[in-house]
Amino acid sequence: MNKICIIGVGLIGGSFALGLKKAGKVHNIIGYSRSENNLKMAVELGVIDSYSTDIGQALSGVDMVLIATPVNSFQSVLEMIKPHIDENVIISDVGSTKGSVIAMAKAVFGIMPSRFIPAHPIAGKEKSGVEAADATLFKGKRVILTPTENTDTQALITVSDLWESIGARVEVLDDKIHDDLLAMTSHLPHMLAFSLMDYLINSDASALNYAAGGFKDFSRIASSDASMWRDICINNADEIVKHIEGFQRNLSQISDLIKGAQAQEIESLFVNAKTARDNWLNE
Amino acid sequence: MNKICIIGVGLIGGSFALGLKKAGKVHNIIGYSRSENNLKMAVELGVIDSYSTDIGQALSGVDMVLIATPVNSFQSVLEMIKPHIDENVIISDVGSTKGSVIAMAKAVFGIMPSRFIPAHPIAGKEKSGVEAADATLFKGKRVILTPTENTDTQALITVSDLWESIGARVEVLDDKIHDDLLAMTSHLPHMLAFSLMDYLINSDASALNYAAGGFKDFSRIASSDASMWRDICINNADEIVKHIEGFQRNLSQISDLIKGAQAQEIESLFVNAKTARDNWLNE
Repeated sequence: MNKICIIGVGLIGGSFALGLKKAGKVHNIIGYSRSENNLKMAVELGVIDSYSTDIGQALSGVDMVLIATPVNSFQSVLEMIKPHIDENVIISDVGSTKGSVIAMAKAVFGIMPSRFIPAHPIAGKEKSGVEAADATLFKGKRVILTPTENTDTQALITVSDLWESIGARVEVLDDKIHDDLLAMTSHLPHMLAFSLMDYLINSDASALNYAAGGFKDFSRIASSDASMWRDICINNADEIVKHIEGFQRNLSQISDLIKGAQAQEIESLFVNAKTARDNWLNE
Repeated sequence: MNKICIIGVGLIGGSFALGLKKAGKVHNIIGYSRSENNLKMAVELGVIDSYSTDIGQALSGVDMVLIATPVNSFQSVLEMIKPHIDENVIISDVGSTKGSVIAMAKAVFGIMPSRFIPAHPIAGKEKSGVEAADATLFKGKRVILTPTENTDTQALITVSDLWESIGARVEVLDDKIHDDLLAMTSHLPHMLAFSLMDYLINSDASALNYAAGGFKDFSRIASSDASMWRDICINNADEIVKHIEGFQRNLSQISDLIKGAQAQEIESLFVNAKTARDNWLNE
């Protein structure tokens, strides 16, 4: 591939660029963002080859554009790039929710562009920003692609190859299935961690003085970026609410077992939970 | 102190013994448990000086007995030691719940013995057993003592000094307050982690294939010992149920904010949660 434009050169966009440069898959990676300082740093760090704060310049002659900005900015980013790309340019993203990204693309382009490949790399770091960019961030990590009925197969293969070239395990899923699975394994746990912290603050903040190591690990995801998680809630609301309600039914059953002092049922539930997690870890 | 008997020489009992020996606070530490192999290993590891599987021998001439067996065994352990100790012997424990321990002591002795000092060291490891015993396990960790109205002050000070000699930060609390605080910061998070795993298994176990690092940390406490947590649920049922219900109300509010797409309220809740956790970490 000759030229890729990365819009939003942070941890994810920067790590993608750095990985591709290390893998020698792309001749020229140009960055675009609103912050020129960030772009300058990205060039100094060798994450991108060059940058422009003019979207027309940034996109001239590109084979592909990767949108790596917060999900809530997608629609305005798509509006911005639309006049500067033709139907041969591959568009992809790294958003945590996929149904909403497809909806925004349809809203902007009228139909889902056949060369728009929605993607979600399931990887991250506690640190953010281009300074934290890491060519190996996606090594062994899953990247979910959610093509639509009119997706161009060649574009799908091209994007898949790029991710695999930097060590990712690419998987293709329906966008609704992706959003459902991620609501269960990522969005729901984040809601539980945020909610527990909120509950403790509002009940008795001094209780935190008695919290230990288990609490520290459990609550770590409550230290995630608030605006990013706000956007995920807005963009995957139905699935998140569905799984919060499903979880609440499960938790109520546990509460009832405790009320009823049903020791055996409680223990077998805990054993099954522990076994499932231990098996998952050993996979 | 001349002689201490540790009943149940596992991670906690063993680490207490090892710490006291390193600190040179006790001349003779004898272990008692049902498993002679475990006791032999404890002697080989230098955790205890000697052992007996005869409770009368184990307790002869002791100044103090520490009960470090699972909470559900307390009543039978107290029945077992009762004939072999006089009112000068200090009794203490390391149970995760304190109200139930006091209730069991009252049931066995008629009244709460004045030299029974209920204690809960808030420390642990993922590993268990005497092999994992560590003289520094309690260094800088909180140990909560929950004396009752008729506690002997000298006995309280003696037990406090022992814990402080191995680096623990001793704090005195009412047993009901202890059980309430621990239900919030330890028991509730464990219920949430067990419940999330149970919910995922029952909804779609394959979802775990898409779980990442955040989920791993969040769910770590779901790999805790199931029988120990069964006992905690039985022994602190009222407080745990109370906080599960309080948490459910908080989570429902978050669910409503998401349903209502109340982005600003969602973000400020997440910001407050993140801030509270980050401040707690930096304390």
